[in-house]
Amino acid sequence: MPVDFVYRIEQPHRTGMLARVCRAIADGDGLIGDIATVSIGPERSIREVSVEVRDVEQAHRLAEILESLDEVRVLDHHDRAIGRHVGGKIEVRPRIAITSLQDLRDVYTPGVARVCESIRDDPSQANRYTWIGRTVAICTNGTRVLSLGDIGPLAAMPVMEAKAIFYGAFTGLNAVPLLIPHNDPDAFVRAVLDVAPSFGAIHLEDIRVPECFEIESRLVDALDVPVMHDDVHGTAVAALAAVMNACTQLGRPLSEQTIGQIGLGAAGFGIACLCNAAGAARVVGCDPDRVAQTHADANGIEIDDFEAVMTRANIIVATTGKAGLIGSEMIREGQVIFALTNPYPEIEPQVALRAGAAFAADGAAVNNALGFPGIFLGALSCGARTISTGMKLAAARAIARLTRASQLVPNPLDPDVHREVAQAVADAARQEGLHRPDRVPPGLALR
Amino acid sequence: MPVDFVYRIEQPHRTGMLARVCRAIADGDGLIGDIATVSIGPERSIREVSVEVRDVEQAHRLAEILESLDEVRVLDHHDRAIGRHVGGKIEVRPRIAITSLQDLRDVYTPGVARVCESIRDDPSQANRYTWIGRTVAICTNGTRVLSLGDIGPLAAMPVMEAKAIFYGAFTGLNAVPLLIPHNDPDAFVRAVLDVAPSFGAIHLEDIRVPECFEIESRLVDALDVPVMHDDVHGTAVAALAAVMNACTQLGRPLSEQTIGQIGLGAAGFGIACLCNAAGAARVVGCDPDRVAQTHADANGIEIDDFEAVMTRANIIVATTGKAGLIGSEMIREGQVIFALTNPYPEIEPQVALRAGAAFAADGAAVNNALGFPGIFLGALSCGARTISTGMKLAAARAIARLTRASQLVPNPLDPDVHREVAQAVADAARQEGLHRPDRVPPGLALR
Repeated sequence: MPVDFVYRIEQPHRTGMLARVCRAIADGDGLIGDIATVSIGPERSIREVSVEVRDVEQAHRLAEILESLDEVRVLDHHDRAIGRHVGGKIEVRPRIAITSLQDLRDVYTPGVARVCESIRDDPSQANRYTWIGRTVAICTNGTRVLSLGDIGPLAAMPVMEAKAIFYGAFTGLNAVPLLIPHNDPDAFVRAVLDVAPSFGAIHLEDIRVPECFEIESRLVDALDVPVMHDDVHGTAVAALAAVMNACTQLGRPLSEQTIGQIGLGAAGFGIACLCNAAGAARVVGCDPDRVAQTHADANGIEIDDFEAVMTRANIIVATTGKAGLIGSEMIREGQVIFALTNPYPEIEPQVALRAGAAFAADGAAVNNALGFPGIFLGALSCGARTISTGMKLAAARAIARLTRASQLVPNPLDPDVHREVAQAVADAARQEGLHRPDRVPPGLALR
Repeated sequence: MPVDFVYRIEQPHRTGMLARVCRAIADGDGLIGDIATVSIGPERSIREVSVEVRDVEQAHRLAEILESLDEVRVLDHHDRAIGRHVGGKIEVRPRIAITSLQDLRDVYTPGVARVCESIRDDPSQANRYTWIGRTVAICTNGTRVLSLGDIGPLAAMPVMEAKAIFYGAFTGLNAVPLLIPHNDPDAFVRAVLDVAPSFGAIHLEDIRVPECFEIESRLVDALDVPVMHDDVHGTAVAALAAVMNACTQLGRPLSEQTIGQIGLGAAGFGIACLCNAAGAARVVGCDPDRVAQTHADANGIEIDDFEAVMTRANIIVATTGKAGLIGSEMIREGQVIFALTNPYPEIEPQVALRAGAAFAADGAAVNNALGFPGIFLGALSCGARTISTGMKLAAARAIARLTRASQLVPNPLDPDVHREVAQAVADAARQEGLHRPDRVPPGLALR
């Protein structure tokens, strides 16, 4: 796993000094990111240089290399990410300042009683007078976290908080992580249902196959609010958008493409299904796991072996978790290759291109933070009772449409992207009659 | 239930005009609160006047009275509280701004993986790198909400959000309301345990007797983090502080007082137990409910009938929910009367004083928002594994100590109060060996 380290470096404030430090970092095989000036004195300056290295050992070696430079001191070096997680990444804050007795009377007794009564008399008022309709629960048991696998719910919390940050930063929705210590679908589903009245939507995250499919489908059936497993559908939406853009660049529509899905885990299954629904000529998939094969087959995905999929498909999407799985000799001239396993892909894009691929990208280029914020905002903004395939397709098309010429997908840091995705999702929900005007939280309606 | 209405009034900007409006409001039996100037023109001004009225009908009548005044127009009149609840009262916000690719790399992949690994390898790191250790779940089934009774969890949400505001405003802790649609203790306890790893403490709220006692005691046994039913213990802490201050004013210590607890529901039971623990000479209680009597008796509270309690006790605390229960003829010369039922007490303080009481107050004077924020902050700030009786007594003593001469309890809007309560609670936890230094979240430690 690559690591970003920050080096706090003091050196003479003279021309050429920074170049020498950068040269030394390159010689130590570090990839420089941001450089920030901390202070400039008359003689010496202090800068913080972020460097991506292979591992912590290399990070320490790099510090030694820098220290050995003449007139350079490394004041400190530390893991960037670890430092930024201290104290947690999200917080609950009042939307109303409490500074007077009148404030207390308004938000608590006696005022609050009338608000309670109005919800008691008409439950649809809950989305008007509480945070419920704009709040998503992010639920996990931590059984399939990043490339780390089953690390349990507690250790998965930093990922859940990251997803919650994206909700806050990109959509203004509230997201609350819920750690549920149950691997058994019965117990997990029961736990979510037991607190579901508190939330306007359920975002499932990092739950392993095959349990995730049963958990999601049972919750979708049991609840009349949006429920979505992001690893299946959010990733699929972002990947389909990339596939659509590749079709545009190839000048041949999706309806004439054979999609080869290598790996039918949560993400691969979701991508294969959504490509099918989007109208690909054919979707053919492979996975060494028998259960995954059966499940995909039952959902309309043709199963073949790995080599056959590589041969038959024009567009390959790989989500296997196996770095280097695809050899360059397997690439066909003119193929499109999405090798999405993070942090090390099934084949490096430049290797695929040299082997004849028309187009190649890795997981870093298809950020799944593009999907879920806008999808849930769109659903909640129109009071949708569920998230349909049509809504997911609308999200993928919006992401594809918003992509600039030189990119594969848009920049997830652009808030307009999420708003446009939400608009497309809400429009699709309305077309399918899945919206409920009486459930729209105040201020959340889009155009 | 009294209602606060806002009247937006336009009138000539001349001396005596506001006096005339105030006079008319008084004639309409309205109690004026805040008056805010909205705009002043050359001839006319607009003001918003908050008025407490008995009910909505009276509010409308008052608007008509004001409209009938010469040169006065009521532009609008509406329920103050209702308007302030629109959209909900709390929100989840990122603590880290996401504006660059480096930010994404720090808070999400690849950076977050190292944080997950460090928690996987050492679970005590969760309080360092996530929000868990500073986050309280406020759990309710809505079976006993204010004076409204069993209105269910959804309609109880505005109260839960109010409590969450107090956590945010007074302590900086995060609080997340959880609505649990189960009246059965088994199901309720299971639901809380199923999500408990997500939170640093469990605040139970508005759960009816007798289920609340079983629910709390089972959760205290099952979890190694603070668990407290606020209606029992938070109220008891604030009430005990008021009782202690009354003792000081009477010049006779608690150890020489007989406390009479009228009503042994959640609050009354908690107050009686805490007065016992604080060293009152005797605590004698009454309640028409047999189950409540048995439960109190099993917990060391002497049971007698209503009249006997009124006769025997020096200090009366009433929490019956029955307005006007205590007749003035029942008051003994020199008695202290706390008639805490909201919004209409068992006896009006001025009536009790006229009947010979040495001291009298109602529920508005003993705000239970004084207790829980500091108690939970104190417990979490030292990593306490539970909330002991000693910690609650420490909180009550701190509240009593912080009271100014003219008051019964301090102002809950004063943030120093909650900090001092927290300090006292943490000190008590340390003295009892209930603290865990490895669980203290960063930045939460007090002195």
